[in-house]
Amino acid sequence: MPISRFVEYEDASPEVRAVYDDIMATRQVDWINNFWKALAQDPVALKRTWESLKEVMAPGALEPQVKEMLYLAVSMANNCTYCINSHTAAARKAGMSDAMWRELVAVASETNALVNAYQVELDEALHKAARRV
Amino acid sequence: MPISRFVEYEDASPEVRAVYDDIMATRQVDWINNFWKALAQDPVALKRTWESLKEVMAPGALEPQVKEMLYLAVSMANNCTYCINSHTAAARKAGMSDAMWRELVAVASETNALVNAYQVELDEALHKAARRV
Amino acid sequence: MPISRFVEYEDASPEVRAVYDDIMATRQVDWINNFWKALAQDPVALKRTWESLKEVMAPGALEPQVKEMLYLAVSMANNCTYCINSHTAAARKAGMSDAMWRELVAVASETNALVNAYQVELDEALHKAARRV
Amino acid sequence: MPISRFVEYEDASPEVRAVYDDIMATRQVDWINNFWKALAQDPVALKRTWESLKEVMAPGALEPQVKEMLYLAVSMANNCTYCINSHTAAARKAGMSDAMWRELVAVASETNALVNAYQVELDEALHKAARRV
Amino acid sequence: MPISRFVEYEDASPEVRAVYDDIMATRQVDWINNFWKALAQDPVALKRTWESLKEVMAPGALEPQVKEMLYLAVSMANNCTYCINSHTAAARKAGMSDAMWRELVAVASETNALVNAYQVELDEALHKAARRV
Amino acid sequence: MPISRFVEYEDASPEVRAVYDDIMATRQVDWINNFWKALAQDPVALKRTWESLKEVMAPGALEPQVKEMLYLAVSMANNCTYCINSHTAAARKAGMSDAMWRELVAVASETNALVNAYQVELDEALHKAARRV
Repeated sequence: MPISRFVEYEDASPEVRAVYDDIMATRQVDWINNFWKALAQDPVALKRTWESLKEVMAPGALEPQVKEMLYLAVSMANNCTYCINSHTAAARKAGMSDAMWRELVAVASETNALVNAYQVELDEALHKAARRV
Repeated sequence: MPISRFVEYEDASPEVRAVYDDIMATRQVDWINNFWKALAQDPVALKRTWESLKEVMAPGALEPQVKEMLYLAVSMANNCTYCINSHTAAARKAGMSDAMWRELVAVASETNALVNAYQVELDEALHKAARRV
Repeated sequence: MPISRFVEYEDASPEVRAVYDDIMATRQVDWINNFWKALAQDPVALKRTWESLKEVMAPGALEPQVKEMLYLAVSMANNCTYCINSHTAAARKAGMSDAMWRELVAVASETNALVNAYQVELDEALHKAARRV
Repeated sequence: MPISRFVEYEDASPEVRAVYDDIMATRQVDWINNFWKALAQDPVALKRTWESLKEVMAPGALEPQVKEMLYLAVSMANNCTYCINSHTAAARKAGMSDAMWRELVAVASETNALVNAYQVELDEALHKAARRV
Repeated sequence: MPISRFVEYEDASPEVRAVYDDIMATRQVDWINNFWKALAQDPVALKRTWESLKEVMAPGALEPQVKEMLYLAVSMANNCTYCINSHTAAARKAGMSDAMWRELVAVASETNALVNAYQVELDEALHKAARRV
Repeated sequence: MPISRFVEYEDASPEVRAVYDDIMATRQVDWINNFWKALAQDPVALKRTWESLKEVMAPGALEPQVKEMLYLAVSMANNCTYCINSHTAAARKAGMSDAMWRELVAVASETNALVNAYQVELDEALHKAARRV
């Protein structure tokens, strides 16, 4: 049950419409999903959040498919239903096959819980290998 | 501060040694990290956990590098220091560059918190696109 | 889908009614919300929880409005739908405007995830400034 | 144990320095804390994160003190040591007294866990009161 | 809203049926719950997960009832609705009374949040008492 | 690194001493651990928290050993180092053997993550079995 009403395109102010247009153009879709329509109640937050996300998702060293799968794995870890659905949809659009999805789920649900339970001390060697020089 | 003592290779029972040997052979390393040495207090759990992990990490539809990066993203979401260090080390060994790491961090820390805050209702269309047929 | 049945006022034992009466008098409302009606299955827990909450929410150094907003921010961080709804309602009743709500959401969803991702080491100076003397 | 090296002011590129200068000017401090020095490895992320935070923390409907206390409460909920220290320091600088801090801690640690345990169903009336019109 | 379709017994492959049969025999039930039917899309994960769980839940030093209550407490801490329902059902079947359930809920929702808020330093003596020799 | 100073017995006010004395008498120990010494900065919170905990831990339908193990499992789920150490110590004092501890760890780290990943829909039958009549 949402606590926010949605701002529909036809009711949106020019600033909100500009963001909506940019979202649709960037993602090559012709509709706006509820997340943005809820956020649009706060036009400044809408613009800030979209621009930040757009920059993060722009072409770079990682494939778009890998980025969407990383998002999906994090959303599973956070148990965010909306996020799981939207990133599954996006990852599939970007070419994630059923076999890839199954492997992602298996990796994402391998637990960190044992490490916490045992309160394992970090290996010097692992830390060195992980550290940025 | 660990609450477990570690089982060193030279003190290990034959079953524990067999798992240690398989870990080193599978990962092509010549030492055992603390996680396994803590877990080895419970040889049954050690074997079960290693075999499960080995199966999940076996070659499949996803590149080993992608799998390690998925693990790393989940470990960041869970704020598990040991896990972050060990999966950063493994992902780098599997070829993750500094640029890739930076993009992973940016994706993994984009927040699901706004969705929670707004309690956004799931779009029918997103759900359909996410759903397995 | 709740796993508890609710204890309605008319079916409640005298001890439960006494807590219900105190809740309504303290909060100046004329009904009991589901949280308390679920908890009332365990009259001892009901009394303990209400008395603890009543003490925490009593007039003090922080405005009631600020306290409700703190609760709301924590509920967002915990992704507790019930809590988000009840504390939004309470904060609005205590005078939180739409503009204040928007700023609260923005603050509450700024992520701690980057700090975790980078495993940032605490600054001596920050720690000193934070420490109670 | 940090996995990132820090970018010190004297070693920073002009873009990084520009952000550092803006941080120090905006916050009226004469040093840069480790969070930004770690993030500066990725100058694009540094700029994006700082500009987003700066906008969120800019004067608005909520007092700076209240914003810092909201951050602190969320950091406690997320158990982020670095964040708890830095926001405690900032909130104290913004005038949070010891009495206010104690009340904040009490509110922030009142648990949502009971609601989860009982899987309490949302009251129609609460939802209506919470909902944005 | 599930993102997976369920694999029904009559549509299942022989490997999946073998796991289903083992689940029903081990638990002495005559139906398969949705968790396994969703997981069965990935027969390898189904088998791995069931065998791991079966081993963990096998007779040992802890009573089955205690194991189910431990699961339930962890599921409450994780706010996993499905898990809370399934482990409540299992624990009741294993003899958990209403009074036991109430005490479990009270223990499981006592918060760790105060410890986080205060960032309490571990006592040497406690650590020694907790440590495995 | 703690952000609170500790209130030692010899420096404590009479109200704080009264709580300390009750803690030591109830638990049959002759020292106060850091959690209480940090909390004692806020004598009202100290009293409220101790009385609530004392009531929860009082003899009832569950064995003290089971209660301590439930706490420990929840602390592992929450990754609270202090709590893991203190409840491990308490559970061992209450008779938890090494074999019991190993089984507890195995149960507590079986993951809810798969359920989240698959967004499994609750079975009507499970819900009915879980529901309190």
